[in-house]
Amino acid sequence: MPSMLDIPADLSPLQDHLAGSLSLVERRVADALRSDLPAVHSLCRHVARYHGKMIRPALTILSALAAGQAAQPHASVATDPHTPTPDPILVVATVCEMVHLATLVHDDVLDTADTRRGQGTINALHGNEAAVILGDYLFSAAFHLCSSLGDKDTSQSIASVGMTLCAGELLQNAHRHDLSLDEATYFGIVERKTASLIAAACRLGAKHAGAPANLVAALERFGLRLGVAFQIQDDLLDLTGDQRVVGKSLLKDLEKGKLTLPMIHHLTTADAVQRGRTLLLLEDAADRASDTAEALRRALESTRSIAHARTVAETLVREAREALGQCPPSPARRMMELMADAVVTRAF
Amino acid sequence: MPSMLDIPADLSPLQDHLAGSLSLVERRVADALRSDLPAVHSLCRHVARYHGKMIRPALTILSALAAGQAAQPHASVATDPHTPTPDPILVVATVCEMVHLATLVHDDVLDTADTRRGQGTINALHGNEAAVILGDYLFSAAFHLCSSLGDKDTSQSIASVGMTLCAGELLQNAHRHDLSLDEATYFGIVERKTASLIAAACRLGAKHAGAPANLVAALERFGLRLGVAFQIQDDLLDLTGDQRVVGKSLLKDLEKGKLTLPMIHHLTTADAVQRGRTLLLLEDAADRASDTAEALRRALESTRSIAHARTVAETLVREAREALGQCPPSPARRMMELMADAVVTRAF
Repeated sequence: MPSMLDIPADLSPLQDHLAGSLSLVERRVADALRSDLPAVHSLCRHVARYHGKMIRPALTILSALAAGQAAQPHASVATDPHTPTPDPILVVATVCEMVHLATLVHDDVLDTADTRRGQGTINALHGNEAAVILGDYLFSAAFHLCSSLGDKDTSQSIASVGMTLCAGELLQNAHRHDLSLDEATYFGIVERKTASLIAAACRLGAKHAGAPANLVAALERFGLRLGVAFQIQDDLLDLTGDQRVVGKSLLKDLEKGKLTLPMIHHLTTADAVQRGRTLLLLEDAADRASDTAEALRRALESTRSIAHARTVAETLVREAREALGQCPPSPARRMMELMADAVVTRAF
Repeated sequence: MPSMLDIPADLSPLQDHLAGSLSLVERRVADALRSDLPAVHSLCRHVARYHGKMIRPALTILSALAAGQAAQPHASVATDPHTPTPDPILVVATVCEMVHLATLVHDDVLDTADTRRGQGTINALHGNEAAVILGDYLFSAAFHLCSSLGDKDTSQSIASVGMTLCAGELLQNAHRHDLSLDEATYFGIVERKTASLIAAACRLGAKHAGAPANLVAALERFGLRLGVAFQIQDDLLDLTGDQRVVGKSLLKDLEKGKLTLPMIHHLTTADAVQRGRTLLLLEDAADRASDTAEALRRALESTRSIAHARTVAETLVREAREALGQCPPSPARRMMELMADAVVTRAF
């Protein structure tokens, strides 16, 4: 994530610190997945290539810095980004990234996806069996590493997030092809399947930096709002993005029968005639008809549904920044504000 | 499991105690999976019907009784089966059952199985998506419940078993259609994918009963030997069982390209001509040819490979009983001996 930001010069020491910590997280993921069985080891090495912007571990480390400064105003951990990230914070960051990687491996099975980050997916290369079992292996390895902290609250939080992520996916699955999906249910899905892990990454970073309860809660709120905004922007890019920039095929959500915020808004605000036309277009989208995308965009524009979704995402980002406002000013807080802004301006 | 045993009259109080504890385990599984989302709750209720003989939680409870007696010779928990099973032991028993249920849900996806225990599978009724995610939900719920104990060793053991189970499945998957699979690799697969959870169920039962380290290790050894013997008997039933008694279609292993102990023994001991004939039969088995089963059985008899596998399983059961011999005599120990014997005599 930080690499996509235009970082002011005075944040560059923090950016270097973050890059260093994230490469430690990458190494710890590899260590946690290491197996003496070549059949297991080679699959895990492949998954290591799925590391992307590493938003979740970055937020754990930044939350620890932003909230930890309040806890220990004179401690070097908070004020000096050159101080190494303390071990429990690195562990939590690594666990959050591993849970994320596990969901990616299973998502690719569910979406019958062939490529991820320019690599073949595990299911495409080794079959669905290997991908389902490997995802389970990653979940178990994440819980194993998490248990090493010997902290009951952290272990229960991560396991609880695992349940919540799955509940969100099951809720979404139950509403596939449901053309009367409402906004409340949509938010219920997104908060669970996307925002819960991001919120936990922030909360646990703050907690392990010794932050007071009100700041831990504020950081969790930041992550929750940011996570929902992030998903809405993902949904928007699926409808309006430039395929070459987004780097994946568009209209995937509609093809899978998943209604997202702009479409929910459109279907509830369009008049009967427009609604009927859109429902026909949605059938075409499911059949991958080629000129449907442009017609759907025009339909969404007619009810200003793209603008509506953008406004909702921007409001969430503002609320996320407000939550951050409880932390004292710091380079980490500023970096998180920039990340929050970038969520709704990114084109990929 | 106890229901398939011919229980002597003096063990019937213990049997009643065990039945009572196992119904508590069933209730705790239901509690741990409860969700306020109907889409999640209904799937979890369906999974509750997968409880079978509940071997793993039964072994946790019995191991606690058998090994706990040595730790607390005067404590009522060990000597009086009417004393309720202590809470941590019930939790461990419940966690082991939940991990087992999670693997069943994912196994059914991998095997494209339509029925389990006379019920439709989750994948058959609700699709692969729901089944993959539900399995993840069950794993996470198991880790969540396990974390509630606040015991680092137990949490790490269960997460480690999760990794080991998956490693065994991945190893098996990597050797599918490998006609030169050797016995050492076969045992490496079976110890991981089947025996590791049974061993952990026994070990953690003994540990939470406060048993000394040598007894905890002996109970783990008992579970490991028993688990491997159990899998060999499963393999034998797939080749030689009566489909109406076993309750599932036979030759499933060969159809999926999995070589089991009798076939490995046969292929390594048969002469070149017989080997060639068997390899042709194996191709037929993969095509579900109807009269292949009888021809394969005759081939296996010609090299005494069924008898070889039986002998190996019986040896493992003897070793399991020897490990149990380190516990003082008790009704629980006798029940476990009967269970061990039943593993190799069962026809289903």
